[in-house]
Amino acid sequence: MFITFEGIDGSGKTTQIAKLREFLGNFFPEREVVVSKEPGGTPIGARIRQEILHGDDIDKRTELLLYLADRAEHVAKLIKPALDRGAIVISDRYSDSTICYQSAGRKLDEDVIMTCNEFSSHGLTPDLTVLLDIEAHISKNRVESSGEKKDRLESSKIDFFERTREKFLELSEGETVAEGGRWLVLSGDDDVDIIADRVAKAVNCMLTHQKVEV
Amino acid sequence: MFITFEGIDGSGKTTQIAKLREFLGNFFPEREVVVSKEPGGTPIGARIRQEILHGDDIDKRTELLLYLADRAEHVAKLIKPALDRGAIVISDRYSDSTICYQSAGRKLDEDVIMTCNEFSSHGLTPDLTVLLDIEAHISKNRVESSGEKKDRLESSKIDFFERTREKFLELSEGETVAEGGRWLVLSGDDDVDIIADRVAKAVNCMLTHQKVEV
Repeated sequence: MFITFEGIDGSGKTTQIAKLREFLGNFFPEREVVVSKEPGGTPIGARIRQEILHGDDIDKRTELLLYLADRAEHVAKLIKPALDRGAIVISDRYSDSTICYQSAGRKLDEDVIMTCNEFSSHGLTPDLTVLLDIEAHISKNRVESSGEKKDRLESSKIDFFERTREKFLELSEGETVAEGGRWLVLSGDDDVDIIADRVAKAVNCMLTHQKVEV
Repeated sequence: MFITFEGIDGSGKTTQIAKLREFLGNFFPEREVVVSKEPGGTPIGARIRQEILHGDDIDKRTELLLYLADRAEHVAKLIKPALDRGAIVISDRYSDSTICYQSAGRKLDEDVIMTCNEFSSHGLTPDLTVLLDIEAHISKNRVESSGEKKDRLESSKIDFFERTREKFLELSEGETVAEGGRWLVLSGDDDVDIIADRVAKAVNCMLTHQKVEV
């Protein structure tokens, strides 16, 4: 089972992934759980992450291709082998981030992105994608009040995040788990434990082969 | 004017580029000449080169995407600005290497490579591409007798280089400068100075707006 968490910066992905891992440890202790992230889930990915987020100013095409290189390696070396072992894999960001940030955010050609995305992910689609939806100004406030130094991406303007957020919502439209799709769209403004319960409920349904009702 | 040199490893590109630079310095001293290479023509490209040629074993999709990231940065930050200044740009490898090594050599999907190549090169095509053609076993002998430590690519098997060589010849078919195309195909087995003279003659024709006859 392959689960991805998506959403703009500050939407609470890290917190929710920790909560889901805890839930799985408690209720499915026999299952191996692999938690990873993009960019940076492999050794070369970690160096790519450094280039993208903390390196020199790079061309936006270079940026896209580095994200894709990171994903190709992530799928080949970490995600696929783990899924083949029967593990539950949870990734903090995956292909949808590339579509939303690079096409809506950076305004690169969406057809090229779709072709490249399919190639870099080896055609692997998540079973469940949790979208934590927050407004761009809340994202900005959360990132700023975290006190951490902002990376290159987090320093982007508010309309960049607003476009990216809208694209996430567009991708999930008509494709939610309730509609037979793979998206679980939750408000990132809700209480942390309420969100965690909903995610746990959906994952529990899927692992026990019940229809997902959330 | 944008000139690229292509050919499998050990075909003599480095030597011929040095000869062409010397010729241009002597006969067109007023022109700025920028010599570069792929991968590695920019600071981030140099780090990508290290990953590809001397790093850990990487997935072949990751390898392709890193070559493309290198090219996107190379075109955006070095080649295009130099051409805009009116410089003559000479690159040791460019898009054709990606097509030949990654599709024929590594057997990745050619349509994906063409789409990605066009994107990463910002649609920029060379005015002249010099193909130094040698047989795969000569390539292997030259690389081995150079005494230098072989990089990851140079350690590939002989049929990998044979497939790559054939693809270079296929790309240039019907597209030579004599036929109105951009390819100047020369035997890399010929004497170094004979090759250099032919390249110089072609470049001289192009710079003085004469029909290229070689």
